[in-house]
Amino acid sequence: MALVAVSNKRVILKRYLTACEIGQLGDEMEVVTAEAVPLSVPAGSFAVLVKNLYISCDPYLRNRMIRHEVPTYISDFVPGEVVTSHGVMKVISSGHLDFKAGDLVWGMTGWEEYTLINNPESLFKINYPEFPLSNYTGVLEMHGLTAYVGFFEMSKPKKGASGAVGQVVGQLAKITGCYVIGSAGYDEKSKFGFDDAFNYKKEQDLEAALRRYFPEGIDIYYENVGGKMLDAVLPNMSLGGRIVACGMISQYNLEQPEGVRNLYYIVTKRLRMEGFHVFDYYDRYYRFEEEMAGYLKEEKVSYVEDVVEGLDTAPAALIRLFTGRSVGKQLVAVAREQAPAHQEN
Amino acid sequence: MALVAVSNKRVILKRYLTACEIGQLGDEMEVVTAEAVPLSVPAGSFAVLVKNLYISCDPYLRNRMIRHEVPTYISDFVPGEVVTSHGVMKVISSGHLDFKAGDLVWGMTGWEEYTLINNPESLFKINYPEFPLSNYTGVLEMHGLTAYVGFFEMSKPKKGASGAVGQVVGQLAKITGCYVIGSAGYDEKSKFGFDDAFNYKKEQDLEAALRRYFPEGIDIYYENVGGKMLDAVLPNMSLGGRIVACGMISQYNLEQPEGVRNLYYIVTKRLRMEGFHVFDYYDRYYRFEEEMAGYLKEEKVSYVEDVVEGLDTAPAALIRLFTGRSVGKQLVAVAREQAPAHQEN
Repeated sequence: MALVAVSNKRVILKRYLTACEIGQLGDEMEVVTAEAVPLSVPAGSFAVLVKNLYISCDPYLRNRMIRHEVPTYISDFVPGEVVTSHGVMKVISSGHLDFKAGDLVWGMTGWEEYTLINNPESLFKINYPEFPLSNYTGVLEMHGLTAYVGFFEMSKPKKGASGAVGQVVGQLAKITGCYVIGSAGYDEKSKFGFDDAFNYKKEQDLEAALRRYFPEGIDIYYENVGGKMLDAVLPNMSLGGRIVACGMISQYNLEQPEGVRNLYYIVTKRLRMEGFHVFDYYDRYYRFEEEMAGYLKEEKVSYVEDVVEGLDTAPAALIRLFTGRSVGKQLVAVAREQAPAHQEN
Repeated sequence: MALVAVSNKRVILKRYLTACEIGQLGDEMEVVTAEAVPLSVPAGSFAVLVKNLYISCDPYLRNRMIRHEVPTYISDFVPGEVVTSHGVMKVISSGHLDFKAGDLVWGMTGWEEYTLINNPESLFKINYPEFPLSNYTGVLEMHGLTAYVGFFEMSKPKKGASGAVGQVVGQLAKITGCYVIGSAGYDEKSKFGFDDAFNYKKEQDLEAALRRYFPEGIDIYYENVGGKMLDAVLPNMSLGGRIVACGMISQYNLEQPEGVRNLYYIVTKRLRMEGFHVFDYYDRYYRFEEEMAGYLKEEKVSYVEDVVEGLDTAPAALIRLFTGRSVGKQLVAVAREQAPAHQEN
């Protein structure tokens, strides 16, 4: 094969953010066109060269743009280097036996057109290309697995339990027979089949709102918000309720986190609050992928995406997460190469 | 039996406290000598009349002297009525088949000389009267059971785990082979065989102190303090650590609880924080009593009490819990009637 080289447009971090800049778009990212990359992996390398199709915009990325004195569970980005996140990719050239040119995969990649992935063991194959490939930045990927593990393994749900939860986890809860109220930072119109939903940013008195929605208490709270939301939830939990903590988005762009005052309810109501990270559950991925693909086919789970086009729009797309302007999973289409839709009989 | 009547000195609640008065002795309690009580239970009654020997001073009692708009897990005291808590009692007269005059029991009773107990099913028999009977206000009663359940059932300890814990639970942890640092609101000299101990009220920088004591992180934190202590513990927890929450004494006398800012560590360190109440575990009592009696006999557990004499001193004794002046379990000797010590061969 002749060695083909192309240019490579990429989003790089220019400088570290201060914590209070998290929700604002400044000059901390830059879209540059880098020098040509060769479109095959170096001879003898075990690496994989991918063409990026979709990249995922996630709240934790903004946190990686801050320089942390004390290391967090994931490394800080480095100024001058490309921003990375999960994405959907097509293999162009492979030095690894598990992958060949043309394979569709998801995993950690760069915000650029082409990425050389030196640890291809971290990639997952896409087994259901009949779905929109962009689903592999969300419902069929780490985000869906987070919901799946958070609900089925961490919450230990009982039929009829009540919970205030996110998009996918709420639908899993509905499938299981729970009474589900969604809570989001925007006006959620579709409700995804939930029993009801509200915008936590618009409620004057969150604690009273929750009392109204859950007169008999909340059995399962899937924590993605933190701060004032958690403070309003705690007095509304039912005895022995569970709080599954997977994120606290309301706290990421504060100089100092809000203090949570109602923790004594953990004692009086005998609550369990437990944090988890999907990294610890990747061994469940293919079982999850199969089950979730089934729910999607049967339309038991529906899924909303907010797709913007092109790497140039990626920095702004990330900010939309914090301004509450994105509805559904925010992602960027870098290049559209949808595999032909599989026709079912 | 001739009907004998005696007078009955008792401590009554005069008026409700405001939250900020919790740690101060005011005129909210009064010691009065009530009219004579008959020393036998009414004919046909299932009640039990007891003579109170020891009464227990516990932080939660101050909280029962506040009028709560929203009910807590235990009812508020009523002005004009006797203060109640756990105590050690001798049965004087019984209308219940399970009890007879002379039996030694522990359970909920009044801060007075004699109490008519209408629900004797709630009483526990004392099976080891060879120990100081006062131990049945603490190490051999609900408090010991709390430590026992909190440690063996809630913490799921592994040998070699590290924990910052209270008097009895720390010794159980030592028996299990854990590295134990005690933390108390006073200068703890005895250390109860712990690996070390510190006064959390005297540390300028609690977070740094904990980092010094636990360079590899805390596996189990037994939470009885809350507020700033919890905020200092969270960044020092090890991955997958457990926080067993049984009380938050630092918060009881505040108008508004302190905000806890470091909760995001629950997510990043995948911590489990769980509240429990010993009420839910009373079915384990007699198994626990036997096991704890064994530890005490073998001197694997030592136990420190702070005993004051007479009902007149009871109100002040309760305050000592909050001023940090009591070392060990605070209790009041109402009448001393220790059963003859059992001589072991």
